[in-house]
Amino acid sequence: MSGEEKLVREIARAFAGQRSGPLRVGMGDDAALWRPRRAQETILTCDWFLEGTHFLRDKHPPDAVGWKSLARATSDIAAMGGSPRCFLLSLALPANCTAKWLRCFLRGLRRASYALGCQLAGGDTTRRDEILINITVIGEAAAGEAVLRSGAHAGDLLYVSGTLGEAELGLRELQRQRGFGKASSNGFVRKHLYPEPRVALGQWLAKERIVTAMMDLSDGLSSDLPRLCSESGVGARIATDSLPRVARRNANDTLELALNGGDDYELLFAVHPKNARKIGTEFRGLPLTRIGEITRDKRVLVEQEGRWRPLTSAGWDPFR
Amino acid sequence: MSGEEKLVREIARAFAGQRSGPLRVGMGDDAALWRPRRAQETILTCDWFLEGTHFLRDKHPPDAVGWKSLARATSDIAAMGGSPRCFLLSLALPANCTAKWLRCFLRGLRRASYALGCQLAGGDTTRRDEILINITVIGEAAAGEAVLRSGAHAGDLLYVSGTLGEAELGLRELQRQRGFGKASSNGFVRKHLYPEPRVALGQWLAKERIVTAMMDLSDGLSSDLPRLCSESGVGARIATDSLPRVARRNANDTLELALNGGDDYELLFAVHPKNARKIGTEFRGLPLTRIGEITRDKRVLVEQEGRWRPLTSAGWDPFR
Repeated sequence: MSGEEKLVREIARAFAGQRSGPLRVGMGDDAALWRPRRAQETILTCDWFLEGTHFLRDKHPPDAVGWKSLARATSDIAAMGGSPRCFLLSLALPANCTAKWLRCFLRGLRRASYALGCQLAGGDTTRRDEILINITVIGEAAAGEAVLRSGAHAGDLLYVSGTLGEAELGLRELQRQRGFGKASSNGFVRKHLYPEPRVALGQWLAKERIVTAMMDLSDGLSSDLPRLCSESGVGARIATDSLPRVARRNANDTLELALNGGDDYELLFAVHPKNARKIGTEFRGLPLTRIGEITRDKRVLVEQEGRWRPLTSAGWDPFR
Repeated sequence: MSGEEKLVREIARAFAGQRSGPLRVGMGDDAALWRPRRAQETILTCDWFLEGTHFLRDKHPPDAVGWKSLARATSDIAAMGGSPRCFLLSLALPANCTAKWLRCFLRGLRRASYALGCQLAGGDTTRRDEILINITVIGEAAAGEAVLRSGAHAGDLLYVSGTLGEAELGLRELQRQRGFGKASSNGFVRKHLYPEPRVALGQWLAKERIVTAMMDLSDGLSSDLPRLCSESGVGARIATDSLPRVARRNANDTLELALNGGDDYELLFAVHPKNARKIGTEFRGLPLTRIGEITRDKRVLVEQEGRWRPLTSAGWDPFR
């Protein structure tokens, strides 16, 4: 058996127990065969997760690399209000990662796969000096129900889920720790290592048809909000006082964290004012916070102590 | 505008003219939205195409990198007898490749996209020291019509399309040349740089329901045939005399090339004897050659000068 076949067999074994679901053919053939449900649109997204760029081999436990690689790709399905269905795993591994590292990675990936209801459908493997991961997630939404970035109108109210900056704070803590980050050490590190895409919230917002535009926050509010505005051809005003920030005792720069912290995978969404009362202040224990509104003026402005200034994109940008 | 947004805009511009087809939402949102056709199954496949592993920056023209990255992934759709529909592009680029290299790469990718009827649906970009490419292709086949690797039975006849070893010979020639490989220099180099997945042949074989198992030859016959046999729970016997090899004047080791040469992207398929007359010796000018048969005995044997020996897998294996 070739080295590649051994690796594929190891992956297949880790996922041996998964239910067949909508997949007719999974791993082992030239491609996977998948039966789309009637009256559903297919949602397609893919994400890099690369050693050195998105994670560090000596800081991120392999189990977290497995979880996070699928969770962050699935967050894009949540951002459309869809249901994750299956995924493709492209994995390039160094020779010394094919034993223990791989086993732990697959354990984390399988946990995410089960938690998110997203089956392994296939993929591609090769050998490489650095660990390279690419994940494609296939989801579904009832035809016409998926929420785009492009539907926001002037006057819509802007909301976010959760607390902004937690994952960035977790990354700082992880960088301070020796060796692997430990999810047990605190909730911020846990959020950085094992993010939970807001699938249920996204589905509820899409189904109730109360949001006009939605996206997930992966690079940070200051980078992501202008993207939603640009796709919708609008601007926005947000008030710094309204941002759901981490508690003061945890950081001195909670505003900076809320505006520019990446990797939160919370949802940012716009709501017509007449639907605002349907939103409430939480969804199944997850805080929902109104942070501002959409404007006709295409600038994105932020208010602090009574003064408005343009929001500067300072979130994650690999090309900076 | 961020560096990443500039890159995404460059990609969007290169594909600006594409027809909307079955895509409702393409690039620019969190994910793409795609409407599957009625009574069709979706085919999902992805492929790495990595600098240093699958191509060399100073040998493979960027235009060929673009073409080949999509063509080889699409070959897996052809191997199921399906129709390519759309693809996702994951691209990691060094800073000095974002101008001319990117333009030429996108030109080759767009040419392949048009030639294969496979639209750009979205993707992911990041910055990296080496060029990393991952392509996911989504295809379709009428429900129940896709051809798997697993359906071959003892007594079925084995066929391949085209001539085996041409792409490997092209790679040798390219390695001998100075600087970039030139498609104009000869047909072998052209086949290595700009492979043509056998989409029309695969579709015809699937539609006519005359093949029991099929796959594409990417790693070489000696590596790929045992995979088809393993999935079908059978063995095979092939005769070296029957293999469609390159002409003697081009290489001394035409048998070695035919057995172990990779990157041909020809189709290997099994046919029940009663359907053999429907196959003929060509399909639209592409040679079809009977090379052996499927056996109950699970070994894969090759006959040379009257003696049978086990076929040793010596094609491409990144883990060797």
